[in-house]
Parts: sequence; structure tokens; C-alpha cells
Amino acid sequence: MSTDPVARSWAWPDPDVTTRAAAVSAATPLVHCLTNIVVAGFTANVVLAAGASPAMVENSAEAAAFARMAGAVLVNLGTLSPEIESAMVAAAHGARSAGTPWVLDPVAVGALDHRTTFAHGLLDAGPAIIRGNASEIQALAGAGGRGRGVDSTAGSREALDAARELARRSGSVVAVSGVVDLVTDGDTVIEVPGGDVLMTRVTGVGCALGALMAAFAAAGSVPLEAAAAASAMMAAAGGRAAEGAPGTGTFAVRLLDELCILSATAAP
Amino acid sequence: MSTDPVARSWAWPDPDVTTRAAAVSAATPLVHCLTNIVVAGFTANVVLAAGASPAMVENSAEAAAFARMAGAVLVNLGTLSPEIESAMVAAAHGARSAGTPWVLDPVAVGALDHRTTFAHGLLDAGPAIIRGNASEIQALAGAGGRGRGVDSTAGSREALDAARELARRSGSVVAVSGVVDLVTDGDTVIEVPGGDVLMTRVTGVGCALGALMAAFAAAGSVPLEAAAAASAMMAAAGGRAAEGAPGTGTFAVRLLDELCILSATAAP
Amino acid sequence: MSTDPVARSWAWPDPDVTTRAAAVSAATPLVHCLTNIVVAGFTANVVLAAGASPAMVENSAEAAAFARMAGAVLVNLGTLSPEIESAMVAAAHGARSAGTPWVLDPVAVGALDHRTTFAHGLLDAGPAIIRGNASEIQALAGAGGRGRGVDSTAGSREALDAARELARRSGSVVAVSGVVDLVTDGDTVIEVPGGDVLMTRVTGVGCALGALMAAFAAAGSVPLEAAAAASAMMAAAGGRAAEGAPGTGTFAVRLLDELCILSATAAP
Repeated sequence: MSTDPVARSWAWPDPDVTTRAAAVSAATPLVHCLTNIVVAGFTANVVLAAGASPAMVENSAEAAAFARMAGAVLVNLGTLSPEIESAMVAAAHGARSAGTPWVLDPVAVGALDHRTTFAHGLLDAGPAIIRGNASEIQALAGAGGRGRGVDSTAGSREALDAARELARRSGSVVAVSGVVDLVTDGDTVIEVPGGDVLMTRVTGVGCALGALMAAFAAAGSVPLEAAAAASAMMAAAGGRAAEGAPGTGTFAVRLLDELCILSATAAP
Repeated sequence: MSTDPVARSWAWPDPDVTTRAAAVSAATPLVHCLTNIVVAGFTANVVLAAGASPAMVENSAEAAAFARMAGAVLVNLGTLSPEIESAMVAAAHGARSAGTPWVLDPVAVGALDHRTTFAHGLLDAGPAIIRGNASEIQALAGAGGRGRGVDSTAGSREALDAARELARRSGSVVAVSGVVDLVTDGDTVIEVPGGDVLMTRVTGVGCALGALMAAFAAAGSVPLEAAAAASAMMAAAGGRAAEGAPGTGTFAVRLLDELCILSATAAP
Repeated sequence: MSTDPVARSWAWPDPDVTTRAAAVSAATPLVHCLTNIVVAGFTANVVLAAGASPAMVENSAEAAAFARMAGAVLVNLGTLSPEIESAMVAAAHGARSAGTPWVLDPVAVGALDHRTTFAHGLLDAGPAIIRGNASEIQALAGAGGRGRGVDSTAGSREALDAARELARRSGSVVAVSGVVDLVTDGDTVIEVPGGDVLMTRVTGVGCALGALMAAFAAAGSVPLEAAAAASAMMAAAGGRAAEGAPGTGTFAVRLLDELCILSATAAP
């Protein structure tokens, strides 16, 4: 476990966070999402609730062209296939060549060899942000995390050294989701507290957070601040949505409501 | 912008609309949906709420056969792949050869060349209804709309001339979604007011409207009236669902509830 | 129609059911789901609400390996493609070779020849449980059911003889969903009453029930009891969720809430 001091802590309603959230709804940036069949609808609704415009274009004939039109791109490895892998490679390199920031979400990397190899290859296209749970980040850093399906077997702080190492080596900002989210560019670390355990019992909250980071980056935040501000907005919405929720059904509905409310109150 | 007078305006609870809604729940028609991974679940729930029976069969080995069994077919171009494109071509031609009405939703046509070409090819199979936003309809009519991802950059009235031209040339009814929905067969224009801006902030409301038009056509309405009545039912549900909704989560839940309520009250 | 006496009836809060539900949340088993694009998100949320950990891995490069890591596997034929069919065959045989129980949900088998043939082939990999509606079970048993899209054209009791015959021949437990659910290993029959008609008006309740049966089997219940206890938990949640629900939107949200509540109250 790292004993390095955490440089900063970001939480809603810090102006660092709210001004960036306001920039998203002011710009309504186009966010190109290549994501999985489980969470595609929820992801789109999260991006819309924050005031951005999601579009899922997932075939190799269109992905590169669309990545160059978008303000940012999300590549989430949840459900792979030969066709979507081709589209992801095309989108990541299309984004890179256009100077468009893109976010890599290495779902279940470490647990399965095929996607671990695939994710390592994508690093060549220089993601602006890599977002995962502790096991996924450890695995991508070569620090041995294997996870358990899509769940982490480690806490976010256990992955901080691996996150810093991965950030330094790849040039990407690395965000580790957990009870406390940690975001680092290899030097600075921003800690994001808050949220609620219910966020781990609804499918797609982490995946949608990757898309929200892309929306913040598309609206002009630099990757470190996009990742931290998006995490703080999601944590705040999750904490508020959990209050008195009888179960995960109501919680998921309220999470979208709270993102809408936060987005509206953030507007300058 | 067209200055032609609008011939008619349809809104819930006009008998033109409610009798057609009642026919859907009385017949529970089978609606074959080939749609995208983002909205498939929501689309199925909208079709079910209106009293019809959706089934998503999206592979080339089964699509033509199933299109001939269904009461109507939806072909929505949201997320394409070589496999689903083959299935869509098979379903459209299977529907045509069986005399089954089918609805084309040309998502993001104009913004991306690949799907623009693909959509033009599908017109050969004679869709009963083409439903899109203003940019998509302008693009399919060759009037230059390009859109922005899945969003329109024009209002529905700006696309009326293009819609009429497309309807006359293709023989299809053309429905343009917007603040006011417009439906035309090239001569007659039906205007559908109502709805709420929240309908544009939940993913899949427009896509599900295409499926609802298919359900109305499957229950025996002619295409012009199926498209107008489905639009009026969705607009009414959207307007009611938006009242007091704190955000898009609650709105989407209530939209399904209101469709159920409207369907039940429409029944003769 | 069979006139054989039903040996047992299971319903929440019988200890037969609640102790098995408690075992799921105590073990949080990994459930590998190969399912369709319509219901993947809802299925994952149902499995999470019951306290298990779903993961959708649907490509042929990973499916066999992941099936061997999981506590149980679901193979749901809702939306097929050549790629997912390869993955399903690999997962089913991977599960068999590892001694991992797997559940077959033969969606729309009988209505379409391609999937009927495919489902018969999968029987060679020895599913622990086969779950379907009456038409699907009749079709798989060779008793002539054809269904109508994804809907049954017969009641569950009409399919009991076919279910017993299929169970005896395949060695699988067969579960027939309907107003009353019936579960049989060919000899014993367990009847599960309860539920609500709204469960047929939300997409994916039956599909998610197949995943829930897999979760119960992964937590150590033998197939007959896993299928019956999962059916009883879903029926109880459905009945409670339907009380006063204005429509299917609210019902679906409450269904997840009620599964969470039942899971929490079942814990020893």
C-alpha cells in the first residue's frame, strides 16, 4: 500500500468540480461511446443527464470517421467480438490522429488473457484517461491483479502504486474506482470521496463513469481534472440517490435524476 | 421553410388516435424489431406498454423468415455491423415480399457516409414509414442535412419540404420528429403537437417511437395514420410523464407508466 | 394436460426458498451470462439484486475459459449471431468439462427453425436446467409447440407432460414459466404459484429468471431446488412489486427493489 500523501481531495460542490460540470452542459459535447451491450443504454442516459450528447457507433466501417468528429471517445472492453475489436482499434487510432481525447475502460482485464492482450495493444494509441477498478489497473500495470469477473479483489489504495507506475509509463491519467476514487497522472494524486455501496450493485455505474470522464474531457478539461471532476459528480449523485432508497431499482432511477439536478445547479 | 398549410393536427384524446391505440392492445400484434444495442430494452418495453408483442430477431439466418411472421417490422440503423446489416436487408425484403409493413429509422444518416449509402439501398424494399429527425430526413432526401451524431441540427418544419419530396419519390410515409412532429405522405400533412423536451434527454424515445408506429401499422392502421397516431400517443405520454419529474430517471419510468395508462383508457 | 398430482408447492417465505436465497448473497457467486441485447442490463441488475455477481462474456475467444471460472453459466438464445453461437457452444462445453452447472433458455425455439436446431445441439452439453415458456418447452421436447414470437401460446400445465419427457430424456431439470411455474426432474414436480401478469409486460423477466436460477445453482443448490427457489423468489418479488403499480415502468423498478429486500430479509 502506498504511503504517499494525497495531494488534493475533490468533492461536489467544490468550484473545481462544478465549473467543469457547467462546461459540459454549456458545450453539449458529442461523446463517441464504444461500449458493451449490458450498459449501453444506461451509459447514454448518464451522459445525457450531465448535458452531453452520446452516440454509440461500433462498427469498423464508421468508427474511425466518427471518432474524428466527436469531442471525446470511450472504449469500454466489457463485451468484445472480432467486429467490435476492429472498431475499437479504428476509433482509438482515429481519435489519436485527430488529437481527440479518448478514455480506456479495461473491463475484466487480468481475469481473461484475450482482453488483457487486447488492452495492452490499445495503449499504443495513447488514451488520455484509463479508468478501472483496482484489479484491472493492477493487471494493466503488470502488477498482477486478476479480479473476479468484473469485480475487483482489491481496494483502490492498494492499486495506487500500480496506477502511478502505469500513468508514468503510458502518459495517461489513471483513475482507480473504489470506496474512495483515486486519480493520478503519475505525480499528482486527486482523491474523490463519497458515493455509496449501492453504486456497485447496479450494473454500469463504473462503465458510465468512464463515459462521463470523456464528456468532461470533451468539454475542455485536461485529463486529470476531467477524470477527477466526473468522479466527484458521480459520487455526489450516488450518495444523494442512495438516501432512503429501498433497493437498486429506485437507486438507479434517482442516480439519473440527481445527475440532472447537479448539472442544472452547476450551470453558471 | 415550407409555407404550405398543415392539413390536420392530431392529439390525444382525439378518437382518430385513441381508436387506433385501442386496436393495438386488442390485436397484440407481433412487432419484429431490428434495432440497436442502446435502446433495445427500452423499445421492447414501450411496445409492450402499448399492448403489442415485440421480438428482436437480428441475425441473417432468421430475419427474413421472422419478418414474414410478424405484423410489422422495424429497421433502426443505430448500431450497425456486417451481420446486422445482412439481417436488415433480409428482413426488409422478407417483409416486402409478404406484404408486411416495415418502418425505417435512419439513425445518424447524413452524419456518416456508410449508413447513408446503406439507408438509400434499403429504400428499394419500400418502407411503409420512414421516421427520423429533421437532419436525417433531409439527408435521406438528398437535401443536405448532416446532423450531429444522433442529434438534429434543424427543426422539423425546416425539413417539411424534404419530407414531402422523399415521400413522393419513395412512396413511403415520412415522419419528422421534433418539437412538433410532422407526418406526410407527400400530399397530406398531419401535425402532432405536445411532448416535452425531456423526451430528447432520455435515450431511445425516438427509436421507440419508430417501433410504436410499426405496432400501429401491424394493428391495421394505414401508414399515414399509424405514424400520426403513434406520435400522438407518445407525445401525450411524454407530456404527462414530464409533469413534476425531477430528472430523466423518473421521467423514463413514468413514460412507460403513462403509455400503459393511455393504452388502458383507450380500450373501447 | 397432465393429471399427475403435483408433489410439492414452494413459495416465499418457505425456508426451502429463503435459505437458498440467503446462500446466494452469502456466496456472491460469479454468474457467466451469455444473453441477448434486449435484456442484458436488466438481467445483470436482477442477479446483482439477489446478491450474486453477473458477468457477460460473449465472444468465442473468452467464453470457454470464463465458463470454467464461473459458478454457473446462462445460455439464453434471444438474439443469435454466428459469433455468439460459437461463444455459446464454447461456454456450454467449457462448463460441462469443468462440472459447472449451466442453464439453457431456449427463447422462441419452435417459432424459428434455425434456433430450434441450435438448441437441440446444445442439449449434448448437458444443461443442468432448461427454462422456458410452455411453447418453448413443448418445441424442445418435440411435442409441437411453436409459440408466437417470444410469447407462449399454451399454459404451463399443458406443457407438463412434455417437460417431464424432456427432463427424462435430457437429464436436465425443466422449468416451465407461466401463471404457475412448474419445475420437474422428470419425476418430482414442484409448483410455484404467485407472481403477477405485469411480469409478462416487462421485457426480460423470464430471461432474468434463467440467470437467477444459475445464481442459485452456483450457490450450491441442486438443479431442481435452484430452479424452484429462484422461481419462488421472482414470483414473490413480482407479486409485491405489482401492488399499486400504475404501469410497467414503476413495476420494473420495484421488482429490483423487492428482490433486494427479499435478499436482505432472507439472510440468516
